[in-house]
Amino acid sequence: LNRRLASFGTTIFAEMSALAARTGSINLGQGFPDTDGPAQIAEAASRAVLTGLGNQYPPGPGVPELRAAVARHQERFYGLSWDPDAEVLVTAGATEAIAASLLALLEPGDEVVALEPYYDSYAACIAMAGAARVPVTLRPHGGAFALDVDELRAAVTPRTRLLLLNSPHNPTGTVLGPAELAAVAELAVERDLLVVTDEVYEHLVFEGVHTPLASLPGMRDRTVTISSAGKTFSFTGWKVGWVTAVPELVAAVRSAKQFLTFVSSGPFQYAVAEALDLPDSYYADFRADLAAKRDLLAGGLAAAGFEVFRPQGTYFITTDITPLGEKDGLAFCRSLPERCGVVAIPNQVFYDDRTAGATHVRWAFCKRTVVLEEAVERLGRLS
Amino acid sequence: LNRRLASFGTTIFAEMSALAARTGSINLGQGFPDTDGPAQIAEAASRAVLTGLGNQYPPGPGVPELRAAVARHQERFYGLSWDPDAEVLVTAGATEAIAASLLALLEPGDEVVALEPYYDSYAACIAMAGAARVPVTLRPHGGAFALDVDELRAAVTPRTRLLLLNSPHNPTGTVLGPAELAAVAELAVERDLLVVTDEVYEHLVFEGVHTPLASLPGMRDRTVTISSAGKTFSFTGWKVGWVTAVPELVAAVRSAKQFLTFVSSGPFQYAVAEALDLPDSYYADFRADLAAKRDLLAGGLAAAGFEVFRPQGTYFITTDITPLGEKDGLAFCRSLPERCGVVAIPNQVFYDDRTAGATHVRWAFCKRTVVLEEAVERLGRLS
Ligand SMILES: CSCCC(=O)C(=O)O
Ligand SMILES: CSCCC(=O)C(=O)O
Repeated sequence: LNRRLASFGTTIFAEMSALAARTGSINLGQGFPDTDGPAQIAEAASRAVLTGLGNQYPPGPGVPELRAAVARHQERFYGLSWDPDAEVLVTAGATEAIAASLLALLEPGDEVVALEPYYDSYAACIAMAGAARVPVTLRPHGGAFALDVDELRAAVTPRTRLLLLNSPHNPTGTVLGPAELAAVAELAVERDLLVVTDEVYEHLVFEGVHTPLASLPGMRDRTVTISSAGKTFSFTGWKVGWVTAVPELVAAVRSAKQFLTFVSSGPFQYAVAEALDLPDSYYADFRADLAAKRDLLAGGLAAAGFEVFRPQGTYFITTDITPLGEKDGLAFCRSLPERCGVVAIPNQVFYDDRTAGATHVRWAFCKRTVVLEEAVERLGRLS
Repeated sequence: LNRRLASFGTTIFAEMSALAARTGSINLGQGFPDTDGPAQIAEAASRAVLTGLGNQYPPGPGVPELRAAVARHQERFYGLSWDPDAEVLVTAGATEAIAASLLALLEPGDEVVALEPYYDSYAACIAMAGAARVPVTLRPHGGAFALDVDELRAAVTPRTRLLLLNSPHNPTGTVLGPAELAAVAELAVERDLLVVTDEVYEHLVFEGVHTPLASLPGMRDRTVTISSAGKTFSFTGWKVGWVTAVPELVAAVRSAKQFLTFVSSGPFQYAVAEALDLPDSYYADFRADLAAKRDLLAGGLAAAGFEVFRPQGTYFITTDITPLGEKDGLAFCRSLPERCGVVAIPNQVFYDDRTAGATHVRWAFCKRTVVLEEAVERLGRLS
């Protein structure tokens, strides 16, 4: 393993999923649902395989049906128009979209300003590109995590090539508000920065609505927007993601992407095209279901003694373990299966500044209600 | 697009597939079959989706069923034993395996000795890793392309970190023989080099048998072997590949892989596990079918006036266009749809030394017999 990747080892999700399997714990670690998405979408995938749609290499940019559906979806929800041929690129989930964007757009020595805590692939991909990350830490403020726009501004230097954003934000559940988005956009325009924005939780916003950064003034031409089907349609194993951006940026990302996986998920691309066209009621019901689960788990965590940061979006709740007399989230998470048969994620692995997240622990609530109820009961035994 | 990738643009496969689609030509360009693999394997994939196998994130290293099947397959065909837990890693096709191996194992400034012509992702991934490629050119010799072992030896310097091999070899169809493999192994041991070997055409060897490099003395510990389901089972759109290597090397490749796609192709992993266990007759019939197609197309190309390099393996035939009075393979391939409604691949894009492959053109024969017959007829009009 080379020096650039030496510090990354095994992703925390692999460690914690293995721990859950080994101990038979309830896995509130990694963000995947324990119930598959709509049966009609699974049937669409099955039909594609059996009728020979996508069983051979799909086109490099993705099948036309999916690119058109992505464009329709962005128009329908956000009024954004993208040319399906030149401005949409299908990827092997959002993870590949992030890797390809960073490997394509960064020169060695460039700086990337990224929100912290961050999904762990961000740091690894910046390192693979030979660039340096400059974190801007979201800090607890009035019961939620907030972006300090002055800190963001101060993090930009002449070597900054791009801002790497994520909203709704994993793991904190923060959704950037109009003022924060406007400040980001203003800064990007002023300093002529690219922005890569991971919006995979776009349909998991419980308070307010999701506003794509690309919809702000001056941002369409400089923003690489990333999303995926996994979280929105509850088929995380299919790994169908996409990028929307102006043609020049899409072409750049495709240049890297074509050499990472070439193409992916042939038949699933057709099924996801169908999913994106599901009626508004699907999206509304999905959000309402998750909101109720958030409330259930948040209540249980508070009752168990955690300080709870109520998320505005995503399917994660971040808590502080200090009220339980705990100081180290990683040690706490490693001991949790034995103590009460639950697995969670220590946020500190998502920080450069590991003290900032030392006492924060994340819980996924994209699970069946009975499972969450059982988890809440087990967590009650902690105190 | 950064400087490292600037010279790579769009992969030739995308360009030529688009050209075929636009002109309605017979596409003998990219290597994908026009008939899907066994119906029972498609049904296995459909069943996985409908019964909820792999619809959520599979384990990072791949589902246990597939890792076990990969190990069984290597034991059955080559007598090689791999621990499915520590020595097998599932990837998004061989392309991701190559990218992850190179991004994990190379330091910036390292040299990679690679056979030339090469599948185009090799060069791009070496560039993304910040390393330098040192080509060793396979040259026509007695009707086939041969590796000059002395040239290989001379290409190794103190900065060489790894050898990147591919046998059966795309695009030339060469299969490295016992003497060549022994020389490679001797060199790797003597100079303490890693070897990454792309063996995706392992079941497409028409003369002799495939010998994995990892089976040679001293090679098990230093070889990353890559293969995939796409070519062997005729489901190239599913993108299920794998790496076999000792635990330390698998762990290194996984460190990069987990940040490129995290995981991929959940339900297809189960179907491919079933495919690998197909009886010997499947593999034998598959090879016999392709051998007959090779002979059909090789005969047609010879009759049309090309110099034909008869491939020992893969599903590609390389020809020389000089006898037709042609000098530039790329221009020839671009004009071919208009001249006779067929698409092929100019080998020159797989060379650093573009003069070496300037007059070589590659034809895929993994197509239905009627399609190949029609292609042969159209090619007959050229002269
Ligand atoms: C591929 S892991 C994506 C993010 C996620 O699921 C998580 O943070 O748990
Ligand atoms: C992903 S393209 C793999 C190689 C191939 O199919 C080709 O060379 O045509």
